[in-house]
Amino acid sequence: MKLLTYSTNDQPLRLGVLVDENTIVDPQQAYIELLKEQGQERAEEIANALLPHNPTEFIANGDLALQTAKQAISFALENKQESSAIYQYDNVQIGAPVLKPNKIICVGLNYKNHIIEMKREFPEHAVIFAKFATAIAGPNDVFPLNSNLTKKLDYEAELAFVIGKTGKDIAYDEALDYVYGYTVANDITARDMQKRTIQWLQGKTLDKSLPLGPVLVTKDEIPNPHSLDISLTVNGEVRQNSNTEQLLFNVNHLIKFLSGIFTLEPGDIVCTGTPGGVGEAQDKFLQDGDVVKVEISGIGAIETIIKEVSQS
Amino acid sequence: MKLLTYSTNDQPLRLGVLVDENTIVDPQQAYIELLKEQGQERAEEIANALLPHNPTEFIANGDLALQTAKQAISFALENKQESSAIYQYDNVQIGAPVLKPNKIICVGLNYKNHIIEMKREFPEHAVIFAKFATAIAGPNDVFPLNSNLTKKLDYEAELAFVIGKTGKDIAYDEALDYVYGYTVANDITARDMQKRTIQWLQGKTLDKSLPLGPVLVTKDEIPNPHSLDISLTVNGEVRQNSNTEQLLFNVNHLIKFLSGIFTLEPGDIVCTGTPGGVGEAQDKFLQDGDVVKVEISGIGAIETIIKEVSQS
Repeated sequence: MKLLTYSTNDQPLRLGVLVDENTIVDPQQAYIELLKEQGQERAEEIANALLPHNPTEFIANGDLALQTAKQAISFALENKQESSAIYQYDNVQIGAPVLKPNKIICVGLNYKNHIIEMKREFPEHAVIFAKFATAIAGPNDVFPLNSNLTKKLDYEAELAFVIGKTGKDIAYDEALDYVYGYTVANDITARDMQKRTIQWLQGKTLDKSLPLGPVLVTKDEIPNPHSLDISLTVNGEVRQNSNTEQLLFNVNHLIKFLSGIFTLEPGDIVCTGTPGGVGEAQDKFLQDGDVVKVEISGIGAIETIIKEVSQS
Repeated sequence: MKLLTYSTNDQPLRLGVLVDENTIVDPQQAYIELLKEQGQERAEEIANALLPHNPTEFIANGDLALQTAKQAISFALENKQESSAIYQYDNVQIGAPVLKPNKIICVGLNYKNHIIEMKREFPEHAVIFAKFATAIAGPNDVFPLNSNLTKKLDYEAELAFVIGKTGKDIAYDEALDYVYGYTVANDITARDMQKRTIQWLQGKTLDKSLPLGPVLVTKDEIPNPHSLDISLTVNGEVRQNSNTEQLLFNVNHLIKFLSGIFTLEPGDIVCTGTPGGVGEAQDKFLQDGDVVKVEISGIGAIETIIKEVSQS
């Protein structure tokens, strides 16, 4: 299943399911219609609890929500004429598929060619750092560049995975059971701010510096996350081009490693690191008007326009 | 006002107000009683919206919640015999005063004598890093030490402040308007894990590594946060002893600095850094059975018992 968030008329973002290229079904609305058809008196309350419109809560409801959503979506598509749960992709705004996770964990230095271009050591342990939820942006949102703050804005194409259930000390072989799904991320980074102190956080968590999407693909549709093509272009020019088979620490390893340190929770996002080809290695930074596109096979593409907002 | 969270009979933690050394009033329960006395039919719904039991939501309700809580608490204390909103401190469990903030921002290297003992450079910009909400612990919770994971567990006494309203690019002189209140923190750190990679996060965010409390004191009771005594003892031996006047980057500066990078939100916690005297500088790390107490004048004390949990 392909989850996203959508909004009509500037209403708050709600969870939707992309059923084909141009069709979104709102599973909660569809389930209300199904329950009412069955004569259920408290359809809204039940649908709200089982299929929350908030993606983190929907994810926490696990398989029960996914199975119920499937039924509800089938019902809506069979009753297309009467249903008001169906939207055209082009007629709505699309947000990030996860909005307010408890954690955003980023892995640094996780592709060999990126480690070499950044002149770093190969790490014995995964290098991890955080972004805050205020960094999350929709898959086609504009990024507001303040040149008074940073002169070295850079991109990082990344496969992100989302945790589906609470876990601590998870075994390598069971790790993928804890994955809910996969999405495309751009870990937008202000290199000068990243390096002006010994900790990277301040250069990593500008508002809107984590475009995500366009969908969160549930893991059943991606049986092997370690064979996905990942690429990034700036104004159509290919800058990054790799495959997740090149990950130094793979998804299983990261889940084992992270859950050995702290408890993972539903909705937690893990950005797995970026391959070689970042702007800094070529001394090419993002400018006003640049269009940055990240694509991962089996998931889709996100596209961010950089827009200068400083007054000077 | 002194906010905390409390729980009876292992129920979920709820916001409470400490009105004297041994008395807690639940403002939502007290307000329900007041509204019912006034003949209000929908007392529960109104009290739930105005005085949420979740501290982050209560904080987001700002002055309206604080003023309403004051009225409700007065009513409960005037009707002590009939009220069921009053609890004895010793009869309940106490949790952290903020449970699931959107962000936990920690400042490193913010007292001169700590910078010197850690053999670091004086930073031109504040050094910031994150902890995750899974690190938050109550003011008297046990800390589970896994010696298979870390041999160098250390303490860091810190003044923490909590943000009261959303802000970006906040001016130095207006910064304190954005503070909701102050609390005591211990930024428990696994030094070996902190330093095994170039980013500190993994040594900083063990589960339960951020005891907070015992109360969140609203800012009206602490007009000057830059004159507070802060101390830490291990088994009664004084290890850290300073005053917040020694902060290199003070609260105003930090709010200006952080909000220049990203949006601050109600409930966000900022840990302001620790003074000299950490265990690492003396090669004395925390062991099974140690009792670590952090105290700040005008707020109170938190006390953490270290308990070995590894099987080996």
